[in-house]
Amino acid sequence: MAFSIFQTLLGCLPLLCFVSVTDGMPDPTQRDLLIREEASRQTGGRVTLTAAEQELDAYLHRLKEKEMSAAQFPPALHFFRAKPLIQQSSIFKVLQKMPKGAALHIHSSSLVSVDWLVKNVTYRPHCYICFTWDNSVRFLFSDRQPFPRWNCFYWQLLETLRAKIKDPAGFDNSLMQRLTLFTEDPDGEYPNQDVVWEKFERAFIAAAGLITHAPVLRDYLYQGLEELHRDNVMYLELRSGLSKTYELDGTIHDKVWSLKTFQDVTKKFTADYPDFLGARIIFSVHRALSVSEVRAAVEEAIQLQKEFPDVVAGFDLVGREDSGRTLWYFREALSLPAEVGVTLPYFFHAGETDKEGTDVDQNILDALLFNSTRIGHGYALVHHPLAKDLSRKLDVAVELCPISNQVLKLVSDLRNHPAAVLMSEGHPMVISSDDPSLFGTTGLSYDFYQAFVGIGGLKANLGTLKELAVNSIRYSSLPAHLKDTALLMWQNKWHAFISDEA
Amino acid sequence: MAFSIFQTLLGCLPLLCFVSVTDGMPDPTQRDLLIREEASRQTGGRVTLTAAEQELDAYLHRLKEKEMSAAQFPPALHFFRAKPLIQQSSIFKVLQKMPKGAALHIHSSSLVSVDWLVKNVTYRPHCYICFTWDNSVRFLFSDRQPFPRWNCFYWQLLETLRAKIKDPAGFDNSLMQRLTLFTEDPDGEYPNQDVVWEKFERAFIAAAGLITHAPVLRDYLYQGLEELHRDNVMYLELRSGLSKTYELDGTIHDKVWSLKTFQDVTKKFTADYPDFLGARIIFSVHRALSVSEVRAAVEEAIQLQKEFPDVVAGFDLVGREDSGRTLWYFREALSLPAEVGVTLPYFFHAGETDKEGTDVDQNILDALLFNSTRIGHGYALVHHPLAKDLSRKLDVAVELCPISNQVLKLVSDLRNHPAAVLMSEGHPMVISSDDPSLFGTTGLSYDFYQAFVGIGGLKANLGTLKELAVNSIRYSSLPAHLKDTALLMWQNKWHAFISDEA
Ligand SMILES: [Zn+2]
Ligand SMILES: [Zn+2]
Repeated sequence: MAFSIFQTLLGCLPLLCFVSVTDGMPDPTQRDLLIREEASRQTGGRVTLTAAEQELDAYLHRLKEKEMSAAQFPPALHFFRAKPLIQQSSIFKVLQKMPKGAALHIHSSSLVSVDWLVKNVTYRPHCYICFTWDNSVRFLFSDRQPFPRWNCFYWQLLETLRAKIKDPAGFDNSLMQRLTLFTEDPDGEYPNQDVVWEKFERAFIAAAGLITHAPVLRDYLYQGLEELHRDNVMYLELRSGLSKTYELDGTIHDKVWSLKTFQDVTKKFTADYPDFLGARIIFSVHRALSVSEVRAAVEEAIQLQKEFPDVVAGFDLVGREDSGRTLWYFREALSLPAEVGVTLPYFFHAGETDKEGTDVDQNILDALLFNSTRIGHGYALVHHPLAKDLSRKLDVAVELCPISNQVLKLVSDLRNHPAAVLMSEGHPMVISSDDPSLFGTTGLSYDFYQAFVGIGGLKANLGTLKELAVNSIRYSSLPAHLKDTALLMWQNKWHAFISDEA
Repeated sequence: MAFSIFQTLLGCLPLLCFVSVTDGMPDPTQRDLLIREEASRQTGGRVTLTAAEQELDAYLHRLKEKEMSAAQFPPALHFFRAKPLIQQSSIFKVLQKMPKGAALHIHSSSLVSVDWLVKNVTYRPHCYICFTWDNSVRFLFSDRQPFPRWNCFYWQLLETLRAKIKDPAGFDNSLMQRLTLFTEDPDGEYPNQDVVWEKFERAFIAAAGLITHAPVLRDYLYQGLEELHRDNVMYLELRSGLSKTYELDGTIHDKVWSLKTFQDVTKKFTADYPDFLGARIIFSVHRALSVSEVRAAVEEAIQLQKEFPDVVAGFDLVGREDSGRTLWYFREALSLPAEVGVTLPYFFHAGETDKEGTDVDQNILDALLFNSTRIGHGYALVHHPLAKDLSRKLDVAVELCPISNQVLKLVSDLRNHPAAVLMSEGHPMVISSDDPSLFGTTGLSYDFYQAFVGIGGLKANLGTLKELAVNSIRYSSLPAHLKDTALLMWQNKWHAFISDEA
């Protein structure tokens, strides 16, 4: 019986092919080999750990067993309920200290914690606020009373308003709530994806007036890098539409200004923090645009990349896939670079959907056919065996953002996240946070926690974490020599981390 | 670009290996080939449909698009909320009429709808009831006032009790609620797996006093076959512990009596309904037993199979995996048949867990190493790439019971059920209902609906349904000649179904 089973594995497990079993019980040694062979396939399954690493690994394993058998298992809860539990988790504390490499999937409008936006930015002079009829807010910096715009007919100077308010802490909290998805009752308030996406887009718009104020943008980007650095992240690829920015007097700056500002801030930051490697931009436009608009954006991306080769990593389409247009719809626009003989790397969001079998569900295959460097989310990838094979063979990594997928209602219990399949197969993968400020996270540690404890389960180990961190450099858009630099920097941090923890 | 992609697929897609692409856009024809190649991998993806079948398929596709875009999508809701929506679904109505083949994973204590148990069985004479301190009930048929037993100190004759009750319908409903998991507020009442499993086991115990009454058992089995037959199911493999049964006067019958009764009832039923093929038993004991007790049960199974080769299909271990003992724990007992040179087919529940990486999570591999004929649930299979390969190569089908997995809180939105991965890969699979009476289903149509609409998504088609039905015969325990008979019977039914529907 067992003989035929080992014969069946012929080819993949040559070690076992010549073993024959005569009695009825499967040979425990062979069983052990199979278990270890399977474990070796997972992300980090072939990483060899040093003695000190093994010690830390054993410690993490014990902690994880404890957390898995506790009354409340954070990855099984909505993140808004799980967050305070995670903050108390000893595993989380290790993950915060761990050098995690790069954050490769974050959107610029949601980079910095809302706390900073409200407590710092909205307290700056000349900040006006308006409350719209649809229960949203708009902000605007202006040196005079703003004209009505954006459904706003009544702008109030925040300074004046705050002077009249009796409960300033309560007021600030109400502002924070407009700028994030956080709520005490996520299941009640967001009964389905449509509702949560609506709030999501509204919060984006609310933040825009603050972030696109030119002087704020500069500080905002610096603050964003600082939050990542504090969480032991060393490099960022930021998806950004490079929105126009405005000055107090109404002067408007263009995309190039934003890019230059981004470049300046990054330079200043890496000068201040030499253990931070840098940041690049993935220029992104909304998938609600027309083909000709996307074509123009692709042309613009080519141009910007030519002018800022060190800063512009490539191009992406953003916005909710289910309600947007498919990659295939934009095929003519997306073929433009190849047509004109230029390389424009793509970093497509694809497969952030549970609408199995619809047109949108083909985005992953099309992302691959358009030679995407990575795939944003790829939530639906496991339902596409051919695309999955392809992505693996082409070494196109999936950008896994577990908390985003949960908050945007693709999955409730993260143990059911499809990335558990990818992780068990060692599929190319990096961890990111998508929209940290909207979900109430900072850095990558929360998403690493969910990936490590919830998605990876008890079998994910320190080798998994190490490979995920290394992946974030390997699958970055950095040129080879900078990848080497980054890897060296990361290794030094890792050694320090291990000796501190052991 | 596209050239390298097609080269990458070399080996799996020979058709495409010689195609070269020169311009920047992926060739639409080749893209189409890839999409069709992927679609062909899914369950039923290689089934050729007749013109009439294609028509029905197109109709189902349109219905599914409509249901997927409705405000409430049944597979995304808890089944207790989804059930009334499913009952109104036109897809469901087609599935009810569709010949679905065999039900291969149903437990004997939960075979018949609770409605029948309450409205028929509890109205029989001599039926006593007792309410226990832990909010459960016990039933007992007796020709005299029963002695205290099972935590029951006060037995009331139901006839007498009912005569005193003002709201008999309300009373009957309360009985039904003790015998199923149904509740208006499943999320509130069952906050986690522990709570729902506790209620689950309690409901089992409550039903036992009714079902193990010898005269009831006979009718119960007949009624069970009738409910399956009415739902166009034609064959059953029933997991049963072959509990002892009792007569009014307290006489006790043994397992052999139960087996003979099962055989008699099946014979009578197939005589009454010649288009029903029959039923077999998978003898099952609880995984809470000790090794020596399981060893004794295996011996008993061997003996019963020798005496009733046409009825006893094999052996299984039942009960919640997470709180029970692992297959490997029972390895000595399970090796017994091979040791004594006997073949005892196994049909192990394995991988009905989300505790990734625990000992229990290895049950699937061990089921395969012990040569299991099928795998009950295999919920965790997709997280085990080696076991998955093995199960595919050995052609060991997974028994998918979607509603059971949802109600027992492994997954909330069935679009996230891991079987979606298996289905997209065409993994050997059958659909069953596990504990229909506890979940409030009858037959297989509800589970087929969830598999077809929720798990399979828009891409599952009539070919998928056809293959799933055929699989239920192919992967049954029937000997080859009976499989041929069954397949012929099923094909006749299928043709009739198609001509009725077209
Ligand atoms: Zn994103
Ligand atoms: Zn079962």
